This record gives sequence, structure tokens and C-alpha cells, in this order.
Amino acid sequence: MKTETTLERGPNDPGLANPSRRSILIGSAGAMAAVSLLGFSRLSAAEEPKSLPDYAVWKERSALIIHSTNTMETQRGAIGNGVITASDRLFVRNNLPAPPASVTDNPDAWEVRVEGVKNPRTLTVGELKSMGVTTVASVLQCSGNGRAFFPHGASGTQWSVGAAGCVMWTGVPLRDVVDALGGAVDGVRYITGTGGESLPDGVDPKSIMVERSIPTRALDSALLAWAMNDEPLPHTHGGPLRLVVPGYYGVNNVKYVKQIALTENQTDAKIQASGYRVRDVGMKGSPDQPSMWEMNVKSWVTSPLESGRKGRNMIYGVAFGGTVALDKVEVSTDGGKNWKPARFLGPDLGPFAWRPFVMAVDFGPGEHRIVSKATDVEGNSQPEGRIDNERGYGHNGWSDHGVTVTVG
Amino acid sequence: MKTETTLERGPNDPGLANPSRRSILIGSAGAMAAVSLLGFSRLSAAEEPKSLPDYAVWKERSALIIHSTNTMETQRGAIGNGVITASDRLFVRNNLPAPPASVTDNPDAWEVRVEGVKNPRTLTVGELKSMGVTTVASVLQCSGNGRAFFPHGASGTQWSVGAAGCVMWTGVPLRDVVDALGGAVDGVRYITGTGGESLPDGVDPKSIMVERSIPTRALDSALLAWAMNDEPLPHTHGGPLRLVVPGYYGVNNVKYVKQIALTENQTDAKIQASGYRVRDVGMKGSPDQPSMWEMNVKSWVTSPLESGRKGRNMIYGVAFGGTVALDKVEVSTDGGKNWKPARFLGPDLGPFAWRPFVMAVDFGPGEHRIVSKATDVEGNSQPEGRIDNERGYGHNGWSDHGVTVTVG
Repeated sequence: MKTETTLERGPNDPGLANPSRRSILIGSAGAMAAVSLLGFSRLSAAEEPKSLPDYAVWKERSALIIHSTNTMETQRGAIGNGVITASDRLFVRNNLPAPPASVTDNPDAWEVRVEGVKNPRTLTVGELKSMGVTTVASVLQCSGNGRAFFPHGASGTQWSVGAAGCVMWTGVPLRDVVDALGGAVDGVRYITGTGGESLPDGVDPKSIMVERSIPTRALDSALLAWAMNDEPLPHTHGGPLRLVVPGYYGVNNVKYVKQIALTENQTDAKIQASGYRVRDVGMKGSPDQPSMWEMNVKSWVTSPLESGRKGRNMIYGVAFGGTVALDKVEVSTDGGKNWKPARFLGPDLGPFAWRPFVMAVDFGPGEHRIVSKATDVEGNSQPEGRIDNERGYGHNGWSDHGVTVTVG
Repeated sequence: MKTETTLERGPNDPGLANPSRRSILIGSAGAMAAVSLLGFSRLSAAEEPKSLPDYAVWKERSALIIHSTNTMETQRGAIGNGVITASDRLFVRNNLPAPPASVTDNPDAWEVRVEGVKNPRTLTVGELKSMGVTTVASVLQCSGNGRAFFPHGASGTQWSVGAAGCVMWTGVPLRDVVDALGGAVDGVRYITGTGGESLPDGVDPKSIMVERSIPTRALDSALLAWAMNDEPLPHTHGGPLRLVVPGYYGVNNVKYVKQIALTENQTDAKIQASGYRVRDVGMKGSPDQPSMWEMNVKSWVTSPLESGRKGRNMIYGVAFGGTVALDKVEVSTDGGKNWKPARFLGPDLGPFAWRPFVMAVDFGPGEHRIVSKATDVEGNSQPEGRIDNERGYGHNGWSDHGVTVTVG
């Protein structure tokens, strides 16, 4: 077991799934048992729970790899070629056990406190719905997506490519809310969102709570979302209300958001101060290291994955540029020696969305190494290799993300 | 019961749902019983079957109005504000009982014959998949959507607004197929698609088959689709393969398509020759009347529908321009006296898609008549009234499509 902040892992015991407020607050014995579980290292394959936890039971089991109760990955072969990821195939990653599912019984009654504005207020979702609305397609991706490819065994969920999906979010632009409350107070540099999960007694809240700060430049695109893919935001994905920051890594998209504060400094919660920091292998996290904010340009092949057929094959994949629109995707079928342009497939849902791509290729018998490389409109391109870092964050190297296809 | 072509109605008896090939071919007695059912007028409310038929049992029952076994409408309140209609909420309209569900067991094996090209061929879906691919969002709408608003009691399913949805289709561009087979033969003016439904014995096939002709200008956008909303095309919606003609009324989007022919003339099948023809009330259908091809510009409000609240309300709706992109949508809350521009919500999925729209309004107590009016980029706008016609086709008058909202 690594000496690493436990928060970045989340609990792995199925017994912790979706606890009621009562069960997590039954006292120090129960609370400490829960907390100790947060320190477990990742499950071995033998320990992997095979069924969906209660709070995600509506998901399509066959589309998912269940790493733990709070971490479920979309199978590479289930990602498809669509511009939007179906909700029941979307990955799940909770940093803490979710609050009771009953929080979505009356979504409009959920309250969020807004601080750091001239007129701070507590607003219900019902009130937010009359303040403004936007619908934005954006990629939701875990910071550790691709972690499984790091040879040093970066701790955390061993995501391959499926801790990502492209989602249609609907909610009020955060800027509309800030403006309605008189605008930001002077000197703020961060948007700090706080999750509404129940915290166990007997633990320093800062060591465990989900509270993230992102730069105020994200006010241009951030929203408080109450719907996902044209359905009320499911409890599994942070309903009734989630802070959505298009183009930012998943952890910044705070679920069950109960407070938004415009702040001068970043929160000192552990998940921000030392968690989700990019640093060399073996180093501890600290606030001076880069935080996992804007996503980098990335792509991967979704089909074929193992076997192709002699002759014409269509190679499919998905690509995105984080906060920057895509320019192009190139595909190589010889491991990166020669590249050809792929074609985008389907409508462009905007700069934060992913774009499915396709390329026709004629295969002879043998093994073919298919890799893809995306470039955004600012000229940023995927590197060939990985950039080693302690927790295996932000991997967008094209080589590791390729697939080897055998043609008989 | 009207003296009208039976084909435009479809069978209404739940017992006819999804018959096996055997049951429909058991001989003249069974066949004639089936055929006689095709002549039934629409069900009265008392006769309405309340449960989903077998071939559509995966649909979200609460989102639908079940008119008959082969006609299910999306509830106005279930249309939502999304750019895409979820498959389980999409309306269903079959002109004939669907073929056995087993046709989608091995979708790649489905065959379609292509005629009217220099090298006619029978192609499997598997072969089509290597010939090209496109993904297009387009509105699927029944020709009779809005029929319920005609005061003369136009016969046919009494659709209100919900015989429409916006769908993401994936398949091969029809032009790619035609090009691969040497191009069109000389003199063709129509694309004629034939459905793969089983036909009962003892009836002239032309009187009952689903075979539609559309002008060859549709080659610019038509596709042979094997997927809908990034899933294999469901049997319920014409899988394994459907001719999709973006911007054209639903009937032209031939399900279970087994033949595509480029032809000099329109088919003489009844569904084309006399069915789906716009004519004055009381007239019979004939080939010299306009056929239901390109859809006209249209919009309607989806929320609120009955009650609003004092103060700020968000009015939502959907709008589309058929084959022409939208320019704008205006909304009136006083029955059409004063109009204000609405704002489009969410990404633009292209000229054939619908666009959700939203407008904020402050309501005082009383009744408010909300109407919406869309205009396309060629300047075509919805008329105020309906254009009376025998079968109640193509209704896009803004007045009938409005809603009256009470604020207490």
C-alpha cells in the first residue's frame, strides 16, 4: 500500500455503497470503520465486485468494468461512435460515498449557498431554473484515465480509456447566478465548489471532503447543471445539482454541490491542496504543483479492438481537445510510422465535446498496430509517450492508447 | 367509417402486433382476417390498448400515448428540451405489422437489393458498413402530426404534436452505394424504397406494401441507416436497415428496407399513388396531387403546458425547418398579438435537426396563450392557420399548436 492521500481513491467496500445518513453517523465505531476503508489500496482482480452497486443499479452492466463500488469504467468496446455517451454506459467515479438517493426525490428543493458575491444567498434548484439556462456538450473524464498504462504502477483506479464520456449538460450559467447576486466581490481568483456528501464524525472534514477550486476564467463556461442528456441529473452522477466545468477534469465537476464560493485563494481541503497534483514519481502532492484543471488533447481508437478482417475495415475512435476545439485527428496502422487524416463523424457539438472519427483502411493478414493522434486548433498535439508522474494523471500519449489488431 | 385508403391507417388490433411469419401466412382465412383489420377505423378512447405491444415493450410507457398497436405518440410533456430524442421516448408509427423481431438477431446479414444502377447488386448490411459512413441528426415526423387539430375530423391517427422526434442516424450515404455500383442508369428521377414487411396472401401486394418514391435530389442527404442514437437500429424503428431521408416526412423513411431502386417513375403502390397526397377535404388521393416529401417549417411549445407560476417562467419548445436550416423562433404569450425572439438552446446539429428554444417571461395571474412561430433561412414561416386537407397532413399553423397556461 502506497503512502498516498486516501482521498484520491475512494472507498472500495461494496458495503459502503450509498449509505444512509444514519449509517454513516452511527458513532465513532462505525465512523472509524468507514474511514479505515478509505485507506485501502485498490482491489485485486479477485476481489472485484461483479454486480452494480445500489446507487448505480440502472447502469448497463455489460458496458462497464466495475473496479469498485465507486469506480466503474466504460468498456472500450462500449464507447461506440456517438457524439454523446448514453447515460447508462457512462463511467462512474465518486470520491466519497454518495449521499442518500432521496436527495433527488424533490430536486427543485436542493439548496446551494453562493458566497463571494456582493449579495450572498442560498438558492434552491427551483430558483436557479428561472435564472437562466444553457445546454453544453462536454467531455467528462477522470484525471487518472489512462493510469493503467503507467509502468510504475501509479496507485488509484486502474482506468484504461473508459473513464471518459461526452455528456450533454443543462443548467444555469454560473455567470448568470453571480451577476444576479450583484457580481463577484473584489479580489477573487477562484471558484470553489463544495460537495454535499455526508462526512463521517471523528475525522477532520478538510482531510476528506470534496471541495475543489478552479480559476475564475472558468466562469466563461461553468454551469450549475440539473440535467444530463435531457433527463434530470441522476443521483449517481451528482444530482440534483452538479458544478460542471466544461473541458476540466472530472474532479472539478463537484457533485451534489451545496456551496459555490468565489474565493481569493484555493481551498485548503486535502483533495485540492495535495490531491490531484502532477509531480514526479515518488513525490508527495503539494499546492505548488500543477492542479488537474484543463484537460489536454487526446484520442483513442474504439473499433476494431482485437481482430480485423482482410480487406476494407473502418477504424473508429473519439477525440477531444479539453477546452480547445479540435483541428484534426490522424491515424496510423503501422504503430506511428505513417499517418493519414481521419474524418470527423457526425455533428460538431462545440469545443468541449468529443468528436467521433473514422478512417477506412485495407488490411492484409497479420498484426496491425493502430494509433491515433489528435491536434487542437492551437496546434497542441498528443505526444508519443507518457509523462511519468506519481499518480498517473493526464496521460494522453498516443502510443500507449493504441490497439493491436490481428487479421487472419 | 370513411371511404379512405386503408393503408394510411395501419392495423389497430393489438392481436396483430409483431406477428410471426407463420401467423400471417397461415392461409386465406387468417390472411383475410388480418386484411379486414386493416380497414378498421381508428380506435375509440375506450378501445385504446393501454400496454405497450411486444415489439415496442422496451419503450418508456409513461412518455407515450398509445393510439394503437402500430401508433404511439410521445407525450407533449415528455418531449423535453434536448437536441436529441431518447429512443425510448420516440414515437412509433408502422404502416404494416413489423416483420419478426428475429430480423435483428444478425443485422449484418440483412440484404438489400440495389437496382437502377449500372451494376445492380444485393448487398448485406455487413458490406454496406465498409462502403462509407455518416452520422446525421434529423427530425423524424409523421405526415399526420397535428392531425388532431383539424376540425373536419381527418381520418387517421389523431396525433397532436408528439409524432415527431429528433434522431441521430448512422449509416452509409446512399450516394456512396450508388457510386460504388457504377452510378445511376440514365433517366432516373426517383429513389424508390421497398419495405421488408411480410404481406398476407390473397391481396394485391401493391395495395398494401410499403414502397415509396422520392425525388433523386434526396441523394444529397439520404442514407441507409443501421444505427439510431448510437445503438443498432431497433426492430421497432425499422432495423436492421432503414432508408433515412433527412428532412422528409416519416413515411419516406422506409423501414426494414429490402430494395432501393433508382427509377424513372414513381411506384404505383397505393401508399405512393393515392396515399400521402395533399388534397381538398372530400377528395380521393391521386398521383397528380402533392406527395408528402419535404417537411415544412414548424415549432411548438413543450413547457409549460397547463400551469405557470407568478413571476419568471421559462418557456421551452422545439423547432425545425425540414430540409432548410432555421433562422429564428419567435414566441408570443398573448395568442399572437406580440412576439419576442426566443433563444436556441444547445448545439446546432445541422439543418435537418430540430433546435430546442427557450424564452424567459414574467407572468401575472390569469390565462396566457403561448404560441411559437419558426422561420427558416429561406424566409419560410409558419402560417397562423391550418391548411385544410382531407387527411390532415403537414399542419404547421402556429395557432393550433399553442398552449394555454393558467397562473393562479
